[in-house]
Formats: sequence, structure tokens, C-alpha cells
Amino acid sequence: MDPKTRKEVLRKLHYGVYVATAKDGEEHAAALITWVSQASLTPPLVMLALRKDSGIYALLRRTGRGVVHILSQGQKGLAADFFKPTRVEGDRMNGHPFRLENGLPVLTEIPWYFHFEAREWAAGGDHGVLVAEVVGVGKNAEAEESLCLRETGWSYGG
Amino acid sequence: MDPKTRKEVLRKLHYGVYVATAKDGEEHAAALITWVSQASLTPPLVMLALRKDSGIYALLRRTGRGVVHILSQGQKGLAADFFKPTRVEGDRMNGHPFRLENGLPVLTEIPWYFHFEAREWAAGGDHGVLVAEVVGVGKNAEAEESLCLRETGWSYGG
Repeated sequence: MDPKTRKEVLRKLHYGVYVATAKDGEEHAAALITWVSQASLTPPLVMLALRKDSGIYALLRRTGRGVVHILSQGQKGLAADFFKPTRVEGDRMNGHPFRLENGLPVLTEIPWYFHFEAREWAAGGDHGVLVAEVVGVGKNAEAEESLCLRETGWSYGG
Repeated sequence: MDPKTRKEVLRKLHYGVYVATAKDGEEHAAALITWVSQASLTPPLVMLALRKDSGIYALLRRTGRGVVHILSQGQKGLAADFFKPTRVEGDRMNGHPFRLENGLPVLTEIPWYFHFEAREWAAGGDHGVLVAEVVGVGKNAEAEESLCLRETGWSYGG
């Protein structure tokens, strides 16, 4: 495969922009992710690809429970704060307020989120593939539209 | 979970619009799919969720080889033709021209495509989850942007 064509073609796939969070005792993890899709209607499953060298991957392999937050248009700045290593200070993760819901961190500025529980892991490659069941959904606010990765000018993949 | 909130939240996930094709002897399959994401950079993997009651799912379980085409903006009409059962007449599938490349149907009107080979199947739910390696990429034409499901006014999932 020509590497340039491979990158061009694979970067035409569409993604949203999400922050995943998890918690194990006093250890918190949060990460910006894009490789997320629903994977079943009944039961409601999602599939997530997570960098194997990330803190949240290691944590989810242990706990199998987390939250995916769906960013709205206009939250690119918030997204950028979750490129950075996870830092918890009081009731804030990377500077953004959160509360605990069923023991998991919910970022209260992001309009939509769902709780998931791991059902299957595929070996994958440099990312692990998690198939997880959606076990709860929530809304923090009304908002029009979710953020599309293309709208940010960023890309991931290729 | 409140079904209305579940649908509202899960439909905020972003997707592209794709046509997957496969072939086993004289049997051809083509299907419109949206639940597609890259899943690894090295090796290049993708994850696809495919309806278990679809022809392409049955065919891919046997052959493990197929093509994903990435539609461009303006190809909503073409997409709609692949909601229908697969019908091959001469060098056309569902009315659209194709050629064989490594024995697999490539739809020549769609700008970008990649060939994949199955690596792992997860059980999933009403859709099966396929983790596949991208083994070839191609371009039929220059085009600006790929089609985002939101732009079609359709939705899938929830």
C-alpha cells in the first residue's frame, strides 16, 4: 500500500469527538477518543478502540466500566484539555467539573453521555477493541448538535 | 434506561456512509453500512458492525474478505440504492458499475475504498463485530469530502 494513499483514504472515515472516563479507587482516567461506534441495537452495544499505551486502557482492562461523553459543537477547546495527562484537583478533571454517578466520573459541561460495561475484548493492534454494553444514558444540558472530528480541523487515523 | 433518552443520546454519535461489498463464487453481496471505524494504526485495522441477518454478514463469515467504499458528499442517492437487496446485472450492482479487483467488486463511482481481511470476530448482539486488516486502498476519482450520516438526514442507531 502506498502510505500517502492509505492515509488519504482512511482519513475519509467519519468520527465524533468523545471524552471517556473511568475510575478505580482513587485512580481516575480521562481521555479524548474518536474511534467509537454503536455495534448493536439489541442489546445496545458500542465498540471502542483504545490506545494500549494509555492510562484509560489499563484501567478499563481492570474495571470494565466507564463513561463516554459526546461533545457538542463549540467544545473543541474542552476537547484539547483532554489530550493532556489526567489531573484531578478537587471536583475537577483537567480543569473541568465532574461529579460521581454510580462511582464513575461524569463531566458536567458535556451535554450527552452514556455508561458502559465491557462485554468482549478483541486483541486488535496498537489499540485494543472493546465491545461494551450501554447500561445508562444521561444529559447534562440541551444542545443542538454533536461535534464532528472534521469540524475541528484535526484528524486521527490513516 | 429511558428509551427516548437512550435514542437521543446514542444518535449523537457520528458516522460516515459506506457501501461494503463481497463475493463468493457467483454470489455477490453489497450493503449500506455506517458502523465503521478505524481500530489500529499498526497494523491498520478497522472495526465493522454488520447486521447478522444480512447477506453480507453471512458471506463475510465464509470468505473473510471484502471492500468498504467511502461515499462522497452528493452520493446520498447512490447510498439509497444499496438499502435494497443486492442485484447484479452484467457489470452493475444495484444499477451501479463495478469491476473486479483481486476478485472483489469495486464500485467505480465511489471515490475512495479499501480492501480488508477478517482478523477477529466478536459475538456482538444483533450485529456481529468484525475486526479486519486493511490490505489495500484505492481511489476512483478526486473528491473533496466524504459524506457524513448527519448530512443525509438519516439516522441509524439509538
